[in-house]
Amino acid sequence: MSLCEKFLVAQSGGPTSAINATLCGVIEAAIANQIPILGAVHGIKGVMNEQFIPLNDIFSSKENRTLLKTTPAAYLGSCRMKLPDLDKDNALYEKIFHVLKQNEITCFLYIGGNDSMDTVWKLSDYAKAHQIDIRFIGIPKTVDNDLLGTDHTPGFGSAAKYVGATIREIARDSAVYAERSVTIVEIMGRNAGWLTAASCLARCSTSYAPHYIYLPEKPFSREQFIRDIEACPARNMIIAVSEGIQNEDGVYISAQEAQASDIFGHAQLAGACRVLSDIVDKHFHYKTRGIELSIPQRCSAHFASLTDLNESVRIGFASAEAALSGKTGIMFGFRRGKDYYSVDLVENPVCEVANKERKLPEQYINAVGNDVTPAFLDYVKPLIQGEPDFILENGLPKHIALEVF
Amino acid sequence: MSLCEKFLVAQSGGPTSAINATLCGVIEAAIANQIPILGAVHGIKGVMNEQFIPLNDIFSSKENRTLLKTTPAAYLGSCRMKLPDLDKDNALYEKIFHVLKQNEITCFLYIGGNDSMDTVWKLSDYAKAHQIDIRFIGIPKTVDNDLLGTDHTPGFGSAAKYVGATIREIARDSAVYAERSVTIVEIMGRNAGWLTAASCLARCSTSYAPHYIYLPEKPFSREQFIRDIEACPARNMIIAVSEGIQNEDGVYISAQEAQASDIFGHAQLAGACRVLSDIVDKHFHYKTRGIELSIPQRCSAHFASLTDLNESVRIGFASAEAALSGKTGIMFGFRRGKDYYSVDLVENPVCEVANKERKLPEQYINAVGNDVTPAFLDYVKPLIQGEPDFILENGLPKHIALEVF
Repeated sequence: MSLCEKFLVAQSGGPTSAINATLCGVIEAAIANQIPILGAVHGIKGVMNEQFIPLNDIFSSKENRTLLKTTPAAYLGSCRMKLPDLDKDNALYEKIFHVLKQNEITCFLYIGGNDSMDTVWKLSDYAKAHQIDIRFIGIPKTVDNDLLGTDHTPGFGSAAKYVGATIREIARDSAVYAERSVTIVEIMGRNAGWLTAASCLARCSTSYAPHYIYLPEKPFSREQFIRDIEACPARNMIIAVSEGIQNEDGVYISAQEAQASDIFGHAQLAGACRVLSDIVDKHFHYKTRGIELSIPQRCSAHFASLTDLNESVRIGFASAEAALSGKTGIMFGFRRGKDYYSVDLVENPVCEVANKERKLPEQYINAVGNDVTPAFLDYVKPLIQGEPDFILENGLPKHIALEVF
Repeated sequence: MSLCEKFLVAQSGGPTSAINATLCGVIEAAIANQIPILGAVHGIKGVMNEQFIPLNDIFSSKENRTLLKTTPAAYLGSCRMKLPDLDKDNALYEKIFHVLKQNEITCFLYIGGNDSMDTVWKLSDYAKAHQIDIRFIGIPKTVDNDLLGTDHTPGFGSAAKYVGATIREIARDSAVYAERSVTIVEIMGRNAGWLTAASCLARCSTSYAPHYIYLPEKPFSREQFIRDIEACPARNMIIAVSEGIQNEDGVYISAQEAQASDIFGHAQLAGACRVLSDIVDKHFHYKTRGIELSIPQRCSAHFASLTDLNESVRIGFASAEAALSGKTGIMFGFRRGKDYYSVDLVENPVCEVANKERKLPEQYINAVGNDVTPAFLDYVKPLIQGEPDFILENGLPKHIALEVF
């Protein structure tokens, strides 16, 4: 460990309920090691624009660290930007490294998904190639759970918990009337079905809902869907569907409908839940309704998983310590213990994670392709356990923010 | 109090997170007074069909009562049925009273909204006219908070809490990107804006969101809306809108769009949030998105207000005791204390409540009609306080149900 270490940390990609818990872990490691830490605002863009916030003073307060841990979205803001290939725009890399050197940064920690890991990969490669002693560490996050090199991603457990509880509640709501009904609940995950699969958490001693689960990993067949509805004995059916289900030709089910609506200039008007709801309406004349869980599924920190938040803090802390020990170009992941639920941290070369997607494996999808297997429930259940304590403002979980807006 | 009392209880109208807490209060009063109590399944329809469940044994268990208090929707099922006028279908009333007498019911307690109060009114009038000694008590519930004769309705506080917390979280989520954006959140309340108004609970020391609140009590002007957006300094605007906003001619804003979409046979395709989102898209080219809070806003018991649940139990208990004391044709309401938050129960003749709607009064709406007043925040804040304890199943709040589905 060097006495003249200085951290830079940033966040990237879509928000989650746990990405600030990871930031909290990074900051706690910096504070514990008496290292100055800056935050870049809006990810790598903030690095380029030198938009930096000193974090040590703000988070010397225990209350602010607790608030950070339980505030959803991204305290430092986010961006969606992929760096060009190293040989394509050398000036951009020179600019970034100029800023880093100017600010005496010795280590840049980037919390994000597979695009962000690409950024970490390129920057660490550039540093190595130019013999620059700045370390680059990626730290995983995404509600999609689609990163390689880890049993699960920080942020997934909280989103899974919200999806499970909310579908359990929607099922209860739908069951109050004596008339037959089909409720279609649409869940995030364009290409990977992990979060949609987590809807199985809703099942309990008093309900089989969701009665079917349709995932992007399996082609969606309209005919099979109609047969499934016919075969289901439930009066008030609940169906969980990924926003990303596709037909056998790989065309998004939602895109089919969007084309039809384009005449009015309303692209993306229809989601998968509306298309399925339309099919039910036309074939069965049951009462039917589509519900998009939308943004709340990724930011409902009021119902976050304590396990997820604690693990997120831990991986942030460990990543910062790894940087201090001289590591670069890596991303930690979780490895699950065998007999009871526990996690170790494992080190991945970031190049093995960047730009790759981990889909839901076959072992978690049933043979017909309309449900998950019991093994998936065993996988997901430990990730949603426990409730965090909140500091309240007006009776609702209080947040911390860089600026009032 | 008679030794041969026997209660019948039923639930009606749209589900809430607290209607089962009220049922729990009624059952607790029956048990405390050693009175047999039956539940009618699916409201007044269950009475006509004699679909009765004995409740004393099931709820002699403290655990089952706790589960009932925290299970959303309606344990006994619901219906949407209005009885015909007394002079229109005498046979129907004869049938109902025959069933009640056959089952030796001395008091029928009906938990519901203004339609259900109409049922209580008609049944109590019929009993009086025919000198039948069966008492009828209405007990209020609705997330819409639009019943007369009460400071607020059981169920509203929990829905208001979910709306406030969720919009606070959505605001945080929307603020992560540097690009300007307008997010429109659509909230229930077709004719009364109480729940939409409750979005003001999201405001806190770090956020002014929602930046505007549009209510059904004020005509919605497209021009004013565009001026509002222009005038707002926030980079990431959040707008709360009632599903029931109407133009100056009283036409629902959502209906205008639904007509356009009818060509494809998609009635009700568009909600108010989509129409407003379209306006933003066309006039400003900001990133814009509509989010319907949909069913979760009325059934998210995982984030219920303890104040709401406790008051719901209390009004259920007191209503049952009032029945025992000989009352009929009444509905209790809450009267708020003056200096600090507390509630008394007040008695209303049910005829003064039935079929009437209480809109958000002028004092709670700002002069321009695009926000609530500070007085409204003072009104709603006490109603959302406190978190209930849950019994968990698989890490999520456990529910109790009449049947597995």
